[in-house]
Amino acid sequence: MKAKLSLLTVLFTFAIISTSCVSVQVKDNTVSNISSEVKNPKNIILLIGDGMGLSQVSTAIYYKNGKPNFERFNTIGLSKTSSASDLITDSAAGATVFSTGVKTYNGAIGVNKDTIPVPTIVEELSKRGLATGIVATSSIQHATPASFYAHVKSRRLYEDITSFAPNSGVNFFAGGGLKFFTKRKDGKDLLAEMKAKGYEVITDQLPKTISEKSELILLADDGMPKMSEGRGDFLPNATKLALEKLSKNEKGFFLMVEGSQIDWGGHNNDADYLIQELLDFDKTLGVALDFAKQNGETLVIVTADHETGGYTLASYGNDYNKIKPSFSTTGHSGTMVPVFAEGPGASNFNGIYESIEIYHKMMALFGK
Amino acid sequence: MKAKLSLLTVLFTFAIISTSCVSVQVKDNTVSNISSEVKNPKNIILLIGDGMGLSQVSTAIYYKNGKPNFERFNTIGLSKTSSASDLITDSAAGATVFSTGVKTYNGAIGVNKDTIPVPTIVEELSKRGLATGIVATSSIQHATPASFYAHVKSRRLYEDITSFAPNSGVNFFAGGGLKFFTKRKDGKDLLAEMKAKGYEVITDQLPKTISEKSELILLADDGMPKMSEGRGDFLPNATKLALEKLSKNEKGFFLMVEGSQIDWGGHNNDADYLIQELLDFDKTLGVALDFAKQNGETLVIVTADHETGGYTLASYGNDYNKIKPSFSTTGHSGTMVPVFAEGPGASNFNGIYESIEIYHKMMALFGK
Repeated sequence: MKAKLSLLTVLFTFAIISTSCVSVQVKDNTVSNISSEVKNPKNIILLIGDGMGLSQVSTAIYYKNGKPNFERFNTIGLSKTSSASDLITDSAAGATVFSTGVKTYNGAIGVNKDTIPVPTIVEELSKRGLATGIVATSSIQHATPASFYAHVKSRRLYEDITSFAPNSGVNFFAGGGLKFFTKRKDGKDLLAEMKAKGYEVITDQLPKTISEKSELILLADDGMPKMSEGRGDFLPNATKLALEKLSKNEKGFFLMVEGSQIDWGGHNNDADYLIQELLDFDKTLGVALDFAKQNGETLVIVTADHETGGYTLASYGNDYNKIKPSFSTTGHSGTMVPVFAEGPGASNFNGIYESIEIYHKMMALFGK
Repeated sequence: MKAKLSLLTVLFTFAIISTSCVSVQVKDNTVSNISSEVKNPKNIILLIGDGMGLSQVSTAIYYKNGKPNFERFNTIGLSKTSSASDLITDSAAGATVFSTGVKTYNGAIGVNKDTIPVPTIVEELSKRGLATGIVATSSIQHATPASFYAHVKSRRLYEDITSFAPNSGVNFFAGGGLKFFTKRKDGKDLLAEMKAKGYEVITDQLPKTISEKSELILLADDGMPKMSEGRGDFLPNATKLALEKLSKNEKGFFLMVEGSQIDWGGHNNDADYLIQELLDFDKTLGVALDFAKQNGETLVIVTADHETGGYTLASYGNDYNKIKPSFSTTGHSGTMVPVFAEGPGASNFNGIYESIEIYHKMMALFGK
């Protein structure tokens, strides 16, 4: 294990060099451009709506009873989402951008375009003693959450991704993905390893209160159920629990929350699926914003890795007073995606920029 | 004529009352909420990309050689576009929103939902002695430009709309629409009437320099040619000419510029058409931003009335490194549209708001 760790250290050194090379491509590197008038946040909550373009966001306006939480954000930016390999990104390269600040190839999890591991925001902040958490409605090994703690060359290597969990330093995991811990080809029992590392492992339901230990909450073998299959308030409640846990750390925290299945509704061209997942995500924004408002030292950022489905709030034939959602692709699209920010440092997220800037802005606010 | 004018005065009085009634529906009326730290602009340039959703804007990133002018904006907002009659607006109600601050029914030109005329921003500012201009790649009687100077119950009443031009107070018109002045059912020669009101009428080509008179530049019988039909730099050059003209007014000016045919490309589901029109519009943004940068007292606002076509920057099959634009409707859609702002007062255009707020924010900045 020690040999493996020092290999990683070497690789990270290369990765840092490589990172600076990649950042040459960045037009508006804001590392040295953080607004001086803002107080830096102590905590950041990054909420990612996978596949959530502007029409998906607009869904909240038409389909939510009451005011969408999206409307509570005053700062809006636009993120350019292309990956290093493709004009249209996948979720692996799309999340590695947020976790490492590096544009990489589609399929890459926490590695750069030469497959070299790059330290993630979770790893960097853990090292500094901040608390970190990852919550998703997919498995925690799925592309987006995986990119925050694992380093593998392909998103499909779910068991390899899982192997990074015990030493990840993440203080709070919640999502699906139990089978990759227990039913593995290599026969290992990674749940036992997690327990040995001090994790409390919960596989039945979200606990009401939180322990002193790090938490591994796995409520499904693979992805969590759809909203229509009775997932209920898992995402907002797991977010609430994570905030309760992580906010105990006096140095601050970083929490990533993914509304994973907005993307899946888009791929399926299933508007009802997409809308329910989007409304669940909007509800979760409310939890994050309420916490941030009370806490006063927390920046909330909401964005997407890409748009999925070419989702449109079209009319019902010629009747412009009825919305009939439509799609124009079963894949991703290349449109810019919105970035919403609220809290200390939010004004840095104005304007149009490359997706990697979100990482660099966050790290600059954390005092990189 | 005098009788007609005093009737209009009465109607305007009602309209003002009606306006205040309508504004009760507005959740975030910013009239009293303009950021106190900004210096008010002397001039405002409002550029409307008809049918220009976020994917249309994103087109500039993939299809423009060089950096899109959209990227020069630091402030971004999102506009909720529903009209008073329909969840999905048309361009008439969509433009009447910007010109009057009132939500009305689809098809309405400068009138409220009870068909009562509402004073437009052009009329209000003309009355105060500011210069005003209207530039479009449609006819100047088409829904968007018409809503800034005319008051008719239906967008299709092109000849009636034209009748408002002589007394509009507009100092600079450029676009198409000659036939509605000269080949009228009522037999009137409205070009002669325009000349009698002091307009210089130009129907052959954009002049190189500008006269002291008000300008009526009509370079097509109806809509201007498409870019693909050789329209050339009409839109950026007419905008430049308008700025040269209007900026001579020491009290300030308001200029509305419409990229009308982005919408028509969307309705036709013709990606090449849409892309060329969008790039022409982006070039025009450059003219406005360059002027504003040099002038220092000019606010530039760019937005859309609605999205058209469910336009998507989709992939070419499974090849995510090739963009194949696609559409999902031949009509409009209900997604929010972006608002870009740069210059004094720009920060007031942050966040999510109803489309009518754009009028109220502009008027507040003009010191309503």
